[in-house]
Amino acid sequence: MNIKQQKQGRIIGLGLGPGAIDLLSVRADRLLRAASHIAYFRKQGTAGRARTLVAPIINDTAPEEFAMEYPVTTEIPVSDPRYNQHLSEFYDNCTSHIAALSDAGHDVIILCEGDPFFYGSFMHLFTRLEADYPVEVVPGITGMSAAWTATGLPMTWGDDVMVVLMGTMQTKKMLAALKSADAVVIMKIGRHFQSVKTCLLEAGLAERAYIVCYAAMANQAVYRLSDYRDDTLPYFSIIIVHGQGRRP
Amino acid sequence: MNIKQQKQGRIIGLGLGPGAIDLLSVRADRLLRAASHIAYFRKQGTAGRARTLVAPIINDTAPEEFAMEYPVTTEIPVSDPRYNQHLSEFYDNCTSHIAALSDAGHDVIILCEGDPFFYGSFMHLFTRLEADYPVEVVPGITGMSAAWTATGLPMTWGDDVMVVLMGTMQTKKMLAALKSADAVVIMKIGRHFQSVKTCLLEAGLAERAYIVCYAAMANQAVYRLSDYRDDTLPYFSIIIVHGQGRRP
Repeated sequence: MNIKQQKQGRIIGLGLGPGAIDLLSVRADRLLRAASHIAYFRKQGTAGRARTLVAPIINDTAPEEFAMEYPVTTEIPVSDPRYNQHLSEFYDNCTSHIAALSDAGHDVIILCEGDPFFYGSFMHLFTRLEADYPVEVVPGITGMSAAWTATGLPMTWGDDVMVVLMGTMQTKKMLAALKSADAVVIMKIGRHFQSVKTCLLEAGLAERAYIVCYAAMANQAVYRLSDYRDDTLPYFSIIIVHGQGRRP
Repeated sequence: MNIKQQKQGRIIGLGLGPGAIDLLSVRADRLLRAASHIAYFRKQGTAGRARTLVAPIINDTAPEEFAMEYPVTTEIPVSDPRYNQHLSEFYDNCTSHIAALSDAGHDVIILCEGDPFFYGSFMHLFTRLEADYPVEVVPGITGMSAAWTATGLPMTWGDDVMVVLMGTMQTKKMLAALKSADAVVIMKIGRHFQSVKTCLLEAGLAERAYIVCYAAMANQAVYRLSDYRDDTLPYFSIIIVHGQGRRP
C-alpha cells in the first residue's frame, strides 16, 4: 500500500485584541482573511464573543468553523476535583478535533480574545498540542491596555511596579500584592466585586481606582470606583489604579 | 479685523506595538498611511527606532516629520535635580512645537513604541497637552506580550499574580515584589543586569527565568537565564518568569 505522508497544517493562536475590529494587528487581520478553518470558544447558547467580533472580516470568506462550547459547570464548585476533570475532558476533545484537522493538512486559526498567552483558554489547547504540532502564536493588545487607555490617564511611569490581580484570588494575598504595587490592574472581578472593593479601601487605593466596563467595545463605560453605585460589575470589567511615578 | 478661528488638529499617540511592522493594529496602520504630520522621539545621531519601524508604511506618503531628540544627559545622574530640569525643558519644547501644529489645524501622529500609556515617553507630552488639545491614544501590543510569546510558553494561568518591574528600581523593593508574584516581567534592565540576576536567585526564580532580546524584531533571541553567559544585556531585553497557576 502506498502511504502518502500528509504535511500537518499550522495551528495558530490568534490574538484578537480587546474587542474592536480595527484593534486586531495587521498580521492577525491578514491571517484571518485567508483562513480556511477557524475555531473559537463560546458559552453554550451564545454566538461567542470572539466569533462575533470577527464577523466583519470572515463574512465574505466563510471559513469552516469549529465552535468549542464550554461545558456547563456552574453546578460544580471550582474546588471540586470534578470541575477540573470536566474541563480537562473538554480541552482534550477540542484538542483531538483540531489535531485531526491539522493531520488532514488544514491550517486552523484559533480565535483568542486579548493576547493568547495572557490568561487565555487557548493555553489549555496549546499545552496539549505543542509537542506534536506546529503551533504559532500571534500576540494581541490586551484588555488591560484598552482599559487604561479608556481612562484617559497614563498607567505607569519611571520605576512604577505594576501588578495584575484576579478578583477570584484570596483576599489576604490580594491585599499583600496591592500594598507592594504602584499601579494595579484587577480582572475577573464579577461576583467578587465587594471583596475587591474592601481590599482596595484597606490598601488606601480606592480613591484612585477606576472601573472600566467593556474596554474598546461599543458599550465602553468608565467610572471612578468612588462614584460607582451598583453592587455588581459586568463580566468584562477591569479595575485600574494608575501609577504615580517620577515624571519630568 | 476678521479673525477666523482655526479648528485645532487632532494629536494622536499611536501605539506601534513591539517592533514588527505587521504587529501594528489595523487602526494604527490606517492612521499612519493617512498621516500628514508625524513626530517621534529618537536618540541623537540615530534615525530613531520608531521612525525606522514605520518606514515601509510612510515611504510613499512622506508626511512632514518632527524628530524629538533626547538631550544628552548621561553626564548628569538621574538623582540630580538638573536631570529632571533638562528633560522637563525638552518635553516643554516638544509640546510647544506639536501644539503649534495643532493650532495651525494639522493632525499630528506621535509614534509610540509598544503601548503609549505603558512606560512611554509620550506620556510626558500627553500630560502637557491634554487640558488644551484634543489628544487621542491608540493602544498597542506591548513589548512584554511579544517577549512572552517569543518564549513559546503561556505567561499567566488561573489566579496567577503578574508583576511588572524595572531593573532600575531598588533591589530591596524588587525582591519584595518578586516574592509576592507568580509571574514576572522585568524591563529596563541594561547595566542593572547583575543586581537583577541576584534578586531572581534570592527569590528562587532564576531557574525559571528567560531572557528575551529584541522581541518580535528580526534579531529576536531567547535564552534561559541560567544559560546566558554575558555580563550585560542589550537595551531591548526583557526577563520573563512564567506563572504556574492551575490548569485543567
